[in-house]
Amino acid sequence: MESIKIIKIGGNVVDNEAALQDFLEHFASVGGCKILVHGGGKVASTVGRALGIEPVMIGGRRVTDPHTLEVVTMVYGGLINKKIVAALQGLGCRALGLTGADGALIRSARRASTPVDYGEVGDPVSVNRELLVALLEGGYTPVIAPLTLSEQNTILNTNADTMAQTLASAFAPLCSTGLIYTFEMQGVMSADQKLIPHITPELFERFKADGTVSGGMLPKIENALKAVRGGVASVQIGGTTITL
Amino acid sequence: MESIKIIKIGGNVVDNEAALQDFLEHFASVGGCKILVHGGGKVASTVGRALGIEPVMIGGRRVTDPHTLEVVTMVYGGLINKKIVAALQGLGCRALGLTGADGALIRSARRASTPVDYGEVGDPVSVNRELLVALLEGGYTPVIAPLTLSEQNTILNTNADTMAQTLASAFAPLCSTGLIYTFEMQGVMSADQKLIPHITPELFERFKADGTVSGGMLPKIENALKAVRGGVASVQIGGTTITL
Repeated sequence: MESIKIIKIGGNVVDNEAALQDFLEHFASVGGCKILVHGGGKVASTVGRALGIEPVMIGGRRVTDPHTLEVVTMVYGGLINKKIVAALQGLGCRALGLTGADGALIRSARRASTPVDYGEVGDPVSVNRELLVALLEGGYTPVIAPLTLSEQNTILNTNADTMAQTLASAFAPLCSTGLIYTFEMQGVMSADQKLIPHITPELFERFKADGTVSGGMLPKIENALKAVRGGVASVQIGGTTITL
Repeated sequence: MESIKIIKIGGNVVDNEAALQDFLEHFASVGGCKILVHGGGKVASTVGRALGIEPVMIGGRRVTDPHTLEVVTMVYGGLINKKIVAALQGLGCRALGLTGADGALIRSARRASTPVDYGEVGDPVSVNRELLVALLEGGYTPVIAPLTLSEQNTILNTNADTMAQTLASAFAPLCSTGLIYTFEMQGVMSADQKLIPHITPELFERFKADGTVSGGMLPKIENALKAVRGGVASVQIGGTTITL
């Protein structure tokens, strides 16, 4: 394996039938080894509500009690994952859907319950890269849902951005690795709504200090910087390239 | 690979937390290559009803309209499959969950709409055995949900008994293959409620003619006979052994 692309799509692409189909056509046409990581989307809230489980979000993140965990396991690992897999098969891409629980693909640590108790939520700690390499070398394209396996072998809800970064960091020592966050906006936008084409760690410090970038974009860029520090050649957030 | 066991559990085991745990402990302890095929269970009806989809069954089989297909994709491919995978990981078994759509593992033909239109339902036509062999040789235990991929690359709801038989028939030319249907009863019971320890094609014809076996057991035994005719060494239905 000479190179790999880890491509992440967010919940808003997953939620939009036409945007998802456009993305999948593009994804299927990407040559070489690739992995798709998908987010959750609003379907989990819809299904949860129907089952009498009102979604609770803190800072944009889903609080996952045991019932909510069942809902996201169904929706992320079943409905969305298999819908994407079938659509990619129809586009000639040999997609194979997995969660982090399958083959203990991604182990995670349950997030500490302070300052905020997010419940059944984990942060990735390790990747079974060997399994992914075997699938990729067999000609398959892994499609990964944002669920992981705790050290106690329970399923945990996990942020898809972090999963994509963890996967990219696991491949970086093996081959040239690109990490791509597809994005509903053009890329990282400045406060005056211009695309920032390039971010380095130094530029990021400056942009943070002068308020050029702020809010929900900060953890996304921090994630990207973590990946490039871990050896990932470059990270794309839409049209913005992040390098060392 | 010298031998393989294909083990199928029904929806009633899946529905019963204690029975499922008992079964999985037993399954995890089985040595050698093995594949688990699981049925659906009542959860799909519960989730469907919550989403306003009343289950429609004809002759014990679920009519699968497009909304019901979404429900079974969630419940079979997500909730049940990943619950089993995580539990098996906890028992030291390197389980990896798949549907027939993943890696085009099991292709199916949409069932004819006459005499009964079951909707999005398919019968297996081919198995990607190469993918299963690669996973088994890598030390993984495939856990397969009862969903398949049509020639048009759509997901179809599929009978788990038939899937298990198709998988066993695919492995029979490669290695010694056993097919085991775990069962809530002792095995195939005669009309006077005694266990029938052994069934051959000749005995089956006799039992059918004299009414010793009847009803829902008939298609199960026919499935088993199809497997042994296809080269599967033996089939167990609970304590009943089916051979040529």
